[in-house]
Amino acid sequence: MYYIGVDFGGMSIKGGLVDEKGNFVYKTVIETHPDAPSDEIAADVARLIEEVADKSGIGLANVLSVGIGVPGACDSKRGYIYNTTNVNFTDYYLAAEVQKRLSVKLPVYLDNDANCAALGEVLFGGRKITDALMVTLGTGVGTGIIVDGKIFGGYRNMGGEGGHTCLKMGGEKCGCGAHGCFEAYASATGLIRQTKDAIAKNPDSMLARIAEKNSISGKTAFEAARLNDKAAKAVVRRYIKYVGAGIVSILNLLGSEYVIVGGGISREGDFFIKPLSRYINRNKFGSGFYPKTKVVAATLLNDAGIVGAAALGFNR
Amino acid sequence: MYYIGVDFGGMSIKGGLVDEKGNFVYKTVIETHPDAPSDEIAADVARLIEEVADKSGIGLANVLSVGIGVPGACDSKRGYIYNTTNVNFTDYYLAAEVQKRLSVKLPVYLDNDANCAALGEVLFGGRKITDALMVTLGTGVGTGIIVDGKIFGGYRNMGGEGGHTCLKMGGEKCGCGAHGCFEAYASATGLIRQTKDAIAKNPDSMLARIAEKNSISGKTAFEAARLNDKAAKAVVRRYIKYVGAGIVSILNLLGSEYVIVGGGISREGDFFIKPLSRYINRNKFGSGFYPKTKVVAATLLNDAGIVGAAALGFNR
Repeated sequence: MYYIGVDFGGMSIKGGLVDEKGNFVYKTVIETHPDAPSDEIAADVARLIEEVADKSGIGLANVLSVGIGVPGACDSKRGYIYNTTNVNFTDYYLAAEVQKRLSVKLPVYLDNDANCAALGEVLFGGRKITDALMVTLGTGVGTGIIVDGKIFGGYRNMGGEGGHTCLKMGGEKCGCGAHGCFEAYASATGLIRQTKDAIAKNPDSMLARIAEKNSISGKTAFEAARLNDKAAKAVVRRYIKYVGAGIVSILNLLGSEYVIVGGGISREGDFFIKPLSRYINRNKFGSGFYPKTKVVAATLLNDAGIVGAAALGFNR
Repeated sequence: MYYIGVDFGGMSIKGGLVDEKGNFVYKTVIETHPDAPSDEIAADVARLIEEVADKSGIGLANVLSVGIGVPGACDSKRGYIYNTTNVNFTDYYLAAEVQKRLSVKLPVYLDNDANCAALGEVLFGGRKITDALMVTLGTGVGTGIIVDGKIFGGYRNMGGEGGHTCLKMGGEKCGCGAHGCFEAYASATGLIRQTKDAIAKNPDSMLARIAEKNSISGKTAFEAARLNDKAAKAVVRRYIKYVGAGIVSILNLLGSEYVIVGGGISREGDFFIKPLSRYINRNKFGSGFYPKTKVVAATLLNDAGIVGAAALGFNR
């Protein structure tokens, strides 16, 4: 059984053909034309799907379904995009528009990209998981909720925006326009701001010297902290508190068994995940009597979005 | 078809026999002995159930199941109580202990009391709802999540603790031991503290005069605000912001169709619910393109817990 997954990004659109175990038969990538008319972007996606089916040697007639991960707010039941920030899709029935451009009639599903990534990690991340919160720490903070092996999106898919839960009411401005969101503190963008502040206050630190050599990224503070720099260690410690407090807040509501941490910062490995896990399990509600929450790093990383999108067609 | 519901409180245990539409055939109440050994409390509950079945004229043999709402953390699947704050239940299989003390063998279910109240309001509150977040503003803030007409409790029922989502990291101390929880700001306890602060700063206000006559409660600020007192209006405005921001944070994650507000403060009616609804729909993520969230006051109030507990046995 074969499925095609499409992972939409502001820069590129990735497409892959996978089997029911999430193994790639073929994958490729094309450029995104984010400002093109929506119908043209839909045509690009349809062409990508045809190409993937063709070059994989499987053929579209042998594909059970197509799934598309979309960087924005969408209603998965209707295959509809409410709004996206990076690509020109507003009030757009992308699933139907792609479907009618395909040479073979087959089901086309879509969902938010963070939801697809969560589904991909849960199904194919090499762990037996059915119940997880995935938190992707990137330019923003994306979250995906998996309950009983399925995406939980809430009424008309309005939920799952854990990056915009409140961490400090009235605090730092977030990209969404609100103040104090989890994302404003726990994204790589937030960490870079925290790193810059620490450098300004500690111009003679190793952190400052490392930052001078390279441009400041989400890695800078971790790199200096590993070298035992005091200022950097303080930045990392505080950042872990922000990420931990935001996850605790979400867990108190969702009670997930697993927390899967993705995004560039998750590559810091145990140096990041271990103290984060400690913070979460110490501070979550009922830590004295509830089972422990398993906090793990994502394993699929960039491929999670494609296989997760492909898996939208599973068990339908 | 008849069901029995039991609503546990720190002061009293309420029991009722209802039909499948949530109509009471009979209800009664007994005193709680919160410090008695757990087995004695279980025996009290069993006696209450027998009494309700007996006095209703229905008889226990004609009852399909019993449900118990528990003021604490419990695992509904195992009928198990992790911990309670007001009653002596820790690591206790209450459902099985009650079941074996009954004269007729029938299924006994249990769940958290806030979850039961949410289920009761959704099923019998007179609205056609399948998807809701219920927020009870009382001494604390209890939340219950209903998805597709069923309680959503998360892995081993560890979720649903919306009162302990984060509103202001490092802020006001909460009863749970953490700082900055939603509950610390949005409970009646929080409102009373906010009211006292305002009185101290505005000793000549009508708010201060009203507070002098009666003891300060969750109603005081609302009463003075209705009389157009400036200090009281500021308290109410800020309190609505706290409640609204906490609900927005939860909604961004859950995307519920309805928000049902319960607890004493919900009796303030439109004076409270209307501006709260406005705040939520203005500030929730995607307010520009998502459907509106329906914010309503609870209708069953104190009975929600009993009928909700009884409904734990529905559709099993």
